Amino acid sequence: MSPDPRLTGISTIVGAGNVLWRDADKAPSLTDWRGRYTGEALAVVRPASTDEVSRVMAEAARQGLNIVPQGGNTGMCAAATPLAAAQPCIVLKLDRMNRIRWVSPLGDCMAVDAGCILHQVQQAASEANRLFPLSLGAEGSCQIGGNIATNAGGTAALRYGTMRDLVLGLEVVLADGRVLDLMTALRKNSTGYDMRHMFIGSEGTLGVVTGAVLKLFPQPRDRRTAFASAATMAGVLGLLALARETCGDSLGAFEVLNREQIAVIAAHRPELRQPFPDAPWCVLVEVADMSVDGSLGARLEALLAEALERGLMEDATLAVSEAHAKAFWAIRHAVSESSRAAGYVVSHDSVVPLFQQERFVQEAEAAIRAVSPEARVAIHGHIGDGNLHVLAILPQDAGAEVHQRKAAEVSAAVDAVTARLGGAISAEHGIGHAHVARLAAAVPKERIALMAGMKHMLDPEGRMNPGKIFRAG
Amino acid sequence: MSPDPRLTGISTIVGAGNVLWRDADKAPSLTDWRGRYTGEALAVVRPASTDEVSRVMAEAARQGLNIVPQGGNTGMCAAATPLAAAQPCIVLKLDRMNRIRWVSPLGDCMAVDAGCILHQVQQAASEANRLFPLSLGAEGSCQIGGNIATNAGGTAALRYGTMRDLVLGLEVVLADGRVLDLMTALRKNSTGYDMRHMFIGSEGTLGVVTGAVLKLFPQPRDRRTAFASAATMAGVLGLLALARETCGDSLGAFEVLNREQIAVIAAHRPELRQPFPDAPWCVLVEVADMSVDGSLGARLEALLAEALERGLMEDATLAVSEAHAKAFWAIRHAVSESSRAAGYVVSHDSVVPLFQQERFVQEAEAAIRAVSPEARVAIHGHIGDGNLHVLAILPQDAGAEVHQRKAAEVSAAVDAVTARLGGAISAEHGIGHAHVARLAAAVPKERIALMAGMKHMLDPEGRMNPGKIFRAG
Repeated sequence: MSPDPRLTGISTIVGAGNVLWRDADKAPSLTDWRGRYTGEALAVVRPASTDEVSRVMAEAARQGLNIVPQGGNTGMCAAATPLAAAQPCIVLKLDRMNRIRWVSPLGDCMAVDAGCILHQVQQAASEANRLFPLSLGAEGSCQIGGNIATNAGGTAALRYGTMRDLVLGLEVVLADGRVLDLMTALRKNSTGYDMRHMFIGSEGTLGVVTGAVLKLFPQPRDRRTAFASAATMAGVLGLLALARETCGDSLGAFEVLNREQIAVIAAHRPELRQPFPDAPWCVLVEVADMSVDGSLGARLEALLAEALERGLMEDATLAVSEAHAKAFWAIRHAVSESSRAAGYVVSHDSVVPLFQQERFVQEAEAAIRAVSPEARVAIHGHIGDGNLHVLAILPQDAGAEVHQRKAAEVSAAVDAVTARLGGAISAEHGIGHAHVARLAAAVPKERIALMAGMKHMLDPEGRMNPGKIFRAG
Repeated sequence: MSPDPRLTGISTIVGAGNVLWRDADKAPSLTDWRGRYTGEALAVVRPASTDEVSRVMAEAARQGLNIVPQGGNTGMCAAATPLAAAQPCIVLKLDRMNRIRWVSPLGDCMAVDAGCILHQVQQAASEANRLFPLSLGAEGSCQIGGNIATNAGGTAALRYGTMRDLVLGLEVVLADGRVLDLMTALRKNSTGYDMRHMFIGSEGTLGVVTGAVLKLFPQPRDRRTAFASAATMAGVLGLLALARETCGDSLGAFEVLNREQIAVIAAHRPELRQPFPDAPWCVLVEVADMSVDGSLGARLEALLAEALERGLMEDATLAVSEAHAKAFWAIRHAVSESSRAAGYVVSHDSVVPLFQQERFVQEAEAAIRAVSPEARVAIHGHIGDGNLHVLAILPQDAGAEVHQRKAAEVSAAVDAVTARLGGAISAEHGIGHAHVARLAAAVPKERIALMAGMKHMLDPEGRMNPGKIFRAG
């Protein structure tokens, strides 16, 4: 056996050792993180530089090959997984491009290769006494290029915004090999159309992100954490509003879990101490600021005291040590693994305006029960951003066919609620391959048509990650 | 005399009284705020709703009329001024669309018509106990649609970002009359390409912004202001870095003025008390946060004490009252008017990375002196964002011809410095009609070509504000 002859030119560019064409070598890149989609590719190609990416793209254009860019392959929607058949493609794996280019503490920014692991970026910022705030479950293996391509969210978005808000400059290689150099470190720029934002969140369908200039922040000097319980979503939202009013941007995280979600975690991770195992809603609140005089702790205490007095919440416990705070976060971080252990998870990434959140949790749960009474409805997420993950956990033993049918029904029901309340079906996970049909159902045709126009402008042959987000044409 | 027959359909849509076709009625909309450009238009058309804008645009398409959208007509670059000749156009004036659509204190957002005056938006936020942070000299007459179309900056950008960062949702009418409804109140959204950012900062060349959902913030509970002097730009930057590290996002404004700028202000406004009339650099620092215990004032004092001790600055004075703080700001706000009184102003809106700022002020001043030794070089601006306005003030009596020739030479010299240091020629004022040639010289051809591609996609007939930003070709 030997590699496909269409790979010869590409081998010359990146070196034969960086064109993985044997099945065993390709396999890890052909299946998505959840293990739900597996595709085909002629090879996995590992360029070492922007210049190599550019030349690979030009050569792929000559050979008529499609391109599937792939970062850490930790996405939730199979955006980085090649399709099962159709046109021949290569997976473009950026893991060799993992250099921190430079860090400017004065400018509060740093330039990185797209293949840098998120945790590596956080570390480099920290070594310069700065904070790169993006933080999410996969941070030990996801790559910053993938974070950009999917506009990643995570637990710090409430305070620092999503990935989109953290990108100052961008370097993108287009389908024909052209390098678009937008690598500025500028915080203000009014010289024509902003092109960064077309690529951020475009999931590799418009070009390959090869580098970025990222925003950094001063490191907070104090950080306090509390775990609270509330009887109703109205109470949770009241606590949030009060926290915003009294703490402003000190409010760093505001995460929520419903009783079913806590039960799911307790079953799988019994060693975690649950402060409020029976509360309808648990809230994890974190504040952080630059104070060194203990005033932050006092402010958090005052917030909780006032919220108790107003009847917004039932109970609360303040972390008395860093270990105690970590124990709170361990509950939050146990969500994915525990939910998966509880059954077949049909997850959602809905976001609705905060003023619709109360109706959303009621109507989404009712909608799931209507189509799948046997489902457990676990809810957790970034309520501060309006982004709740509603999970319908189906019995594991129902079998793949039932799972797929039920998943479609449940998602259609939840999406209908999301749309009715002015929301979007994906807040931070993206669309990828998994949710193309759901997006088509949720978004007006004219918006899809405009997206197709943007796609056609930048990738007229449709070779960039085809079949992801939407079906052009 | 009677209106052009091509206006008949438009009159039917908006009412004859809202089609201003007489010279005297049109005049205020045909000249830019600085009085440097005057153009021609068949009429100034004043629609009352998004629907009317949509129908006017469709009718203008049928009649082959170009469209020049205009907000408060306070722009610095004649982006809203029609050109002198060429194709017949109408000015689309949005001042009748001035409704606050809704305010959500819980969601920290509000929806507005594009024709709302910025001050009106600030007021409506304030009445809901929230802050809409955009603030700039023209806030009493500029419109939010114009702020969006030009990605306005101002004095709060350091803390809250530019207009781009304050837009959650957008409503745009395209050249053919299609309404693009992106009016979401969502803070996270990963459902396909982001289209908002194409329009923000596109200066009316891609479509007409008719509405927006804006981000609101909690109102700070304490605010402290200081005025400091520094011997060098290195000292100013050191103070800035220290302020960021110790105050974090409490740092609300960090403005700078050089000695010549202070002298220009002192000559025109002798009644303003100048704390440091002879200092090479004056710095206006403002901090604000949610504290109510006086800790903010203590933190600002500690910052200044440490900066003095480290030799970053020479002297500082803390405002002891709101009136005192206002007196500091009065100096900053007197810049434009005082500079204009001092001579013919060739202004620049450069932004360079902070780590190049020291070289920038030296080299920009030297570059101006080389081509125009008689110029006074006054510098002021938002140093915290890297955005300094370098003014070359030429003798008023030299005459228009000399002014224009010198302006071109001076700007070319300053732009060359800006480009060499990785900067951009416009941080917040935009390009408009005034700086098309400068942008073409400063930006790589491929970027202009991509911009032309975006333009062609959304406005294939090139009828939206032609000749602004760049010449599509």
